[in-house]
Amino acid sequence: MAVHLAKGTRDYLPEVMRGRLAVTDRMRKVFEAHGFQPLETPAVERIETLTGKYGDEGSKLIFKILKRGAGGERGECDMALRYDLTVPLARVVAMNADLRMPFKRWQIAPVWRAERPARGRFREFVQCDADIVGSESPMAEAECLAVAADGLSALGFDDYLLRVNHRVLLRALARTVGAAERETELLVAIDKLDKIGRDGVTAELEGRGFAPEAIATVWGVLEGPRGDREATLAHIEAKLEGDDVRAATAWLRRVCTGAEALGVPPERLQIDPTLARGLDYYTGPVFEAVLTDGAIGSVAGGGRYDGLIGMFGKRQVPAVGISLGIERLMVVLQERQQAAQAPSSVDVTVTVVDDDHMTHAAHTARALRDAGLRVELVLEAGKLGKQFKHADALGSTWVVTVGPSEVADGVVAIKHLVSGDQDRVDLNAAIAAIQAARS
Amino acid sequence: MAVHLAKGTRDYLPEVMRGRLAVTDRMRKVFEAHGFQPLETPAVERIETLTGKYGDEGSKLIFKILKRGAGGERGECDMALRYDLTVPLARVVAMNADLRMPFKRWQIAPVWRAERPARGRFREFVQCDADIVGSESPMAEAECLAVAADGLSALGFDDYLLRVNHRVLLRALARTVGAAERETELLVAIDKLDKIGRDGVTAELEGRGFAPEAIATVWGVLEGPRGDREATLAHIEAKLEGDDVRAATAWLRRVCTGAEALGVPPERLQIDPTLARGLDYYTGPVFEAVLTDGAIGSVAGGGRYDGLIGMFGKRQVPAVGISLGIERLMVVLQERQQAAQAPSSVDVTVTVVDDDHMTHAAHTARALRDAGLRVELVLEAGKLGKQFKHADALGSTWVVTVGPSEVADGVVAIKHLVSGDQDRVDLNAAIAAIQAARS
Repeated sequence: MAVHLAKGTRDYLPEVMRGRLAVTDRMRKVFEAHGFQPLETPAVERIETLTGKYGDEGSKLIFKILKRGAGGERGECDMALRYDLTVPLARVVAMNADLRMPFKRWQIAPVWRAERPARGRFREFVQCDADIVGSESPMAEAECLAVAADGLSALGFDDYLLRVNHRVLLRALARTVGAAERETELLVAIDKLDKIGRDGVTAELEGRGFAPEAIATVWGVLEGPRGDREATLAHIEAKLEGDDVRAATAWLRRVCTGAEALGVPPERLQIDPTLARGLDYYTGPVFEAVLTDGAIGSVAGGGRYDGLIGMFGKRQVPAVGISLGIERLMVVLQERQQAAQAPSSVDVTVTVVDDDHMTHAAHTARALRDAGLRVELVLEAGKLGKQFKHADALGSTWVVTVGPSEVADGVVAIKHLVSGDQDRVDLNAAIAAIQAARS
Repeated sequence: MAVHLAKGTRDYLPEVMRGRLAVTDRMRKVFEAHGFQPLETPAVERIETLTGKYGDEGSKLIFKILKRGAGGERGECDMALRYDLTVPLARVVAMNADLRMPFKRWQIAPVWRAERPARGRFREFVQCDADIVGSESPMAEAECLAVAADGLSALGFDDYLLRVNHRVLLRALARTVGAAERETELLVAIDKLDKIGRDGVTAELEGRGFAPEAIATVWGVLEGPRGDREATLAHIEAKLEGDDVRAATAWLRRVCTGAEALGVPPERLQIDPTLARGLDYYTGPVFEAVLTDGAIGSVAGGGRYDGLIGMFGKRQVPAVGISLGIERLMVVLQERQQAAQAPSSVDVTVTVVDDDHMTHAAHTARALRDAGLRVELVLEAGKLGKQFKHADALGSTWVVTVGPSEVADGVVAIKHLVSGDQDRVDLNAAIAAIQAARS
């Protein structure tokens, strides 16, 4: 019988899984440092909860679960696998009117999308989100940017750039070129800039019937100075009119000032008028992180979405969030051979010289475990050479052996597999040596 | 629009989630101490992978996922949500011929079953498993028992009992009463002992046509001495004949000796000839843990299943595993108000006296975070009383405030919310005080 994984899914064997756990452990620490709280929602939601939240394209990618019983025999479905972590969060907020606001939550959990599997694209993958619900302060955006910066740093990425924009500025741009009703078309075209370049966007706008003068105006606004934040904002304010534009640029100034005060390095924070973040539910500031060495695109994205929670109830509740692309980041880390080298999962292996000494070995393992060490006990007596190979393959740094002469002398034999150093010492001395080397 | 969870599923809000994370963190530490490695398998499997593994009843409880496209419109399914963690493990072993043996893995992850929802019964719940694949040593069983004992201890349960039996003894019992071909019927009846009592089992055996003398013999074997392990085993050996019986009792002796050497308290380890562990795939020793104060039934279960992996390939690979019922344990912990009181997720809250001091507050938050503390920064200036209430509600122990006079004097105001003590000190002194109190 041929055995296969379901299409687009993966097993994570221990070597890979240790790296993934190291990444999620570090992200959890960053979220906790920033006062975010853990939330878990079920993997399965009622179909009505997901319907109408992801557009036509997104809806086609939702995995549906067959009803049990007669309905299922007719092909009816009542539940679906979650498509992201944001819509379930909105549902939780709508269902729990007594949540303390602002509600800051983190969640690291899988989502499912029926994408056509391709290299690097999977049907089950992990999202890593932090959201702040119930705050209209620009410090909410600032905290999200600080979480992204600290998260990337904690994972060893110091070559990132945070790009920030405001949806209202794109709306004002559409208005300025006399296309207020075609804001979405303009946004969709600009959103492709990273992928298809300036000429591609120009061609797309021409194809959609934008006049050459309008397109020239678009580039006149979008292609201002970069890097110096005040220069970028002054350029935008000079090119776009309206109180909404002033309010948006003032908001962005406060977001950036706040993010810097929270520790985001100024040179890693850039206003980018071309940033659109697709057709998501964002209503205000949007942001994303890219690695400056390039090729892999955005590694974090987010923004303010003040309308989503209202879709589930009468309450309109403001919200802002950041999602770190940890699947992508883990791929880069593995390529850079960093997180892949998560510390081994075994500190010491206890060997077994013969059946008569199994109990001594087990007692020794127990003492080492009680000392907080991670201990592999060999389960069957056998050739010591093979047991040492097993220890080495596990990444165990130390091997401890208790044979007849050690029992007679009241000591254990201890060997450091890297240096090859060995000694016969009291068990407590062995524990102390291993603990000292570990810390 | 009414908003609901899918039937039989739950949200875990932060208070509950902190307790759940504390439990899974502790279990992970226990698994790591015992040299188990992390494995993650996808939530969705091909239907063929799950078919035929869970019996008729189990198969009905598998959630199936509709095909995308035309097949789905005809109600066809190709994938299903995993029903447990053991069958996916067997698939992984069958698909990865180069896994280093023994392969010891832990996994804590949700599974899905289409049970009729009831109090305490859910359709999505977490399983917590440790398995050793590829070892025929009784030390493999011993490690599983030690993991169960250490896991229960780590969660604060010292009132448990580990019950151990061997499937071969139940087979020999069937043979002894002349019902070798009706071993399954006998096993199913005995398995209900905890639920329906001695009279219930007797009635069931009568109903199934077992003769009164046979039933008397059954009780004669099952109702021997308890507590003293050697007395129990001697009783079994006196009542049941056959080399297989001697081999099984010898194996159980080695399992128990090994478990004790690994630190399982002898008084918490009992041979129990009535233990059957249902109709699962077990082939040798079976075990379970119960809390001795009673009412909630088994909180861990496992055993040796040497046939399962062979269902996926030509290789027969021995395996033994333990599954901790952490959902049940978490319910008990919450009732006992233990894990529910997982440490709060915020060490210190930084208040904001007015908009002009937001940057000072943010700088302060940054410094506290850099010191490894978990810091809630209030996002909007407002009444300080309200901000202190927010800090209190979050379980924050400390509040730090930076107002005009603190800025002028180069200090921060710090208050301990439990004692009410307050002071104005240098920021570094505040950090030191909070760190000292935390550790």
